[in-house]
Amino acid sequence: MSAAPIVPPTRVLAVASHVVSGYVGNKVAVFVLQSLGCDAAALNTVQFSNHTGYRHWTGTKATAQEISDLYRGLKDNYINDFDMMLSGYIPGAEGVLAVGEIAKELKETNKEQPGNFFWVLDPVMGDNGNLYVAADVVPAYKSLLSYADLIIPNQFEAELLSEVKITDMDSLAAAIQAFHEKHRVPHVIITSVSISSPDIPEGHLCVVGSTMTSAGRPRLFKTVFPSIDCYFCGTGDMFGALVTVRMREAAAEAAEGAATAGDVHVTSRASWLSDDAVAAVDLPLARATEKVLASMHEVLTHTKDAMQGVVDRTLAAMTEEERRGDKQKMLAGKKAAELQLVRNLDCLRAPQKTIEVRPF
Amino acid sequence: MSAAPIVPPTRVLAVASHVVSGYVGNKVAVFVLQSLGCDAAALNTVQFSNHTGYRHWTGTKATAQEISDLYRGLKDNYINDFDMMLSGYIPGAEGVLAVGEIAKELKETNKEQPGNFFWVLDPVMGDNGNLYVAADVVPAYKSLLSYADLIIPNQFEAELLSEVKITDMDSLAAAIQAFHEKHRVPHVIITSVSISSPDIPEGHLCVVGSTMTSAGRPRLFKTVFPSIDCYFCGTGDMFGALVTVRMREAAAEAAEGAATAGDVHVTSRASWLSDDAVAAVDLPLARATEKVLASMHEVLTHTKDAMQGVVDRTLAAMTEEERRGDKQKMLAGKKAAELQLVRNLDCLRAPQKTIEVRPF
Repeated sequence: MSAAPIVPPTRVLAVASHVVSGYVGNKVAVFVLQSLGCDAAALNTVQFSNHTGYRHWTGTKATAQEISDLYRGLKDNYINDFDMMLSGYIPGAEGVLAVGEIAKELKETNKEQPGNFFWVLDPVMGDNGNLYVAADVVPAYKSLLSYADLIIPNQFEAELLSEVKITDMDSLAAAIQAFHEKHRVPHVIITSVSISSPDIPEGHLCVVGSTMTSAGRPRLFKTVFPSIDCYFCGTGDMFGALVTVRMREAAAEAAEGAATAGDVHVTSRASWLSDDAVAAVDLPLARATEKVLASMHEVLTHTKDAMQGVVDRTLAAMTEEERRGDKQKMLAGKKAAELQLVRNLDCLRAPQKTIEVRPF
Repeated sequence: MSAAPIVPPTRVLAVASHVVSGYVGNKVAVFVLQSLGCDAAALNTVQFSNHTGYRHWTGTKATAQEISDLYRGLKDNYINDFDMMLSGYIPGAEGVLAVGEIAKELKETNKEQPGNFFWVLDPVMGDNGNLYVAADVVPAYKSLLSYADLIIPNQFEAELLSEVKITDMDSLAAAIQAFHEKHRVPHVIITSVSISSPDIPEGHLCVVGSTMTSAGRPRLFKTVFPSIDCYFCGTGDMFGALVTVRMREAAAEAAEGAATAGDVHVTSRASWLSDDAVAAVDLPLARATEKVLASMHEVLTHTKDAMQGVVDRTLAAMTEEERRGDKQKMLAGKKAAELQLVRNLDCLRAPQKTIEVRPF
């Protein structure tokens, strides 16, 4: 009957888009963070009526100056004491750089205790070969990689940032190695891998992650699981928010184990880097990935199961003429594909599904 | 172990302010609505770094046009199918009227099934004799009262809107009667009553509510409970969000009872008005008020208990010079008084405290 917090007290600055209706960006992230017990500060980079997948929307974007001003307001009031930051969609390169300045400042503030601040960077730029931001956003993100603790690009974004074309498991590993070695990114998860490989059967998805060793070498793990045959918006944002909380949880658990053994806490180290002796599949990042994917699988399954009902009810509420329109049918489908988060709190907090990572 | 939704599927349009850090306005309402199972559409009327109680803040306000545009975006995409609306702080009279237009349109859309849309109006204007909005906001709210289903003013706001000076229990009843008879507001709760009365012992608070009969006569109930001696921001917003969900829950329960007895569902009636035979203390509004106040008592108690710790940690993170400053001490206090919502999910969902309403 208890709905106790899942993590120790954690203040997270969540920087992403806001939509009035539906679930993408901070509308996903803030609820996920909060319902697992994090104190989420929500800096909204846009306020749109709905996500852009509906093709038509209204609303406004925050300028880079407005983003910086909001952070300054927090700082002036001594309420910028964040344990973590999760950044998602930011409109334009100047905005990306403004968010980067926030991360740099929080890193600098915590330089004596570098484990006290952890940045999860979701470099939202595009998917499946399509860039949906301005071209200058790519170098902006590239310039910030070395300040991130964990990056969670999809395959396309990983290619843009690593400059490694991902065509098979070897090039995938090479891209992750580039993040570790060239950009000194400690933790990497490639959230959606679509390559043809004997390891990935038809209709399956692959997620690959790695935490570097002290020498900057990758420790790769992967998991392959049946995909849900449906296009949902906001899945990347759900991944980001869940991994933020679950990484905190897994690192805190590892720290507790270390305390019992008289070792150094993983959370007192910069970027919560595990001992070199820890194998890939035993990393806090691996534990976090398993729980994140289990929650996502359950939420997406419930969403898919409810879709036809939402379409039927939406069309039933229209006039007969509207109901025949292709646009109206498309819109009913978009509404039905909105993530069913709030009525599936159990899936977020305590997923029953088991997903296990394996060595790469 | 279950975190099942508390209400039937309910889509709520929540119109209020947004703060990046802390808990007032939609930052309270959206989490409360969501964690009890409502699909909350969040239309943010401002984005500020923090609430204005800190005295300094940064951010931007939405114009009346921007509010209207956001709603138009929802309508164009057939995602304005709201069961309820909760409106809180809106900057300026034009904005208030823009939100009123949204309510009027949703009322009109549902005129064949008037129980399908319910507006909870929190007329945020001031407190304890101080108006903290422009003077023309008062007539703007007054012009909208007849479209509201439930209004939740504090004593000062009730006086402004009813034009009845509240000095004792009789004038309090007269103010509520004015809302029912003159403005045809079906449900009223005065959320904080501070009058000297033998019914309200020193250090206690009084909340009074009423659902009118079909003849527009009040059915008054009250509850008196020990106050928590501390000033918190966002309590009105927490009340509004909780009462939105609990009113829906109580009306659905009453409807279920009616279905068993072969009677008309309360939720199929305009404004969910109970039969005239239902006594004041048996109203769905009374049931809702009890649960709302129980949750609030628990959250405020936990917040107060944690305050000194937050102050100590905030001051400890400052330089020695800062720590001596009066402004810094004030700011640490403001931070410590932020509602502790996210780590007290149980208090919101399943309060243990019992609060009972009595006949007025």
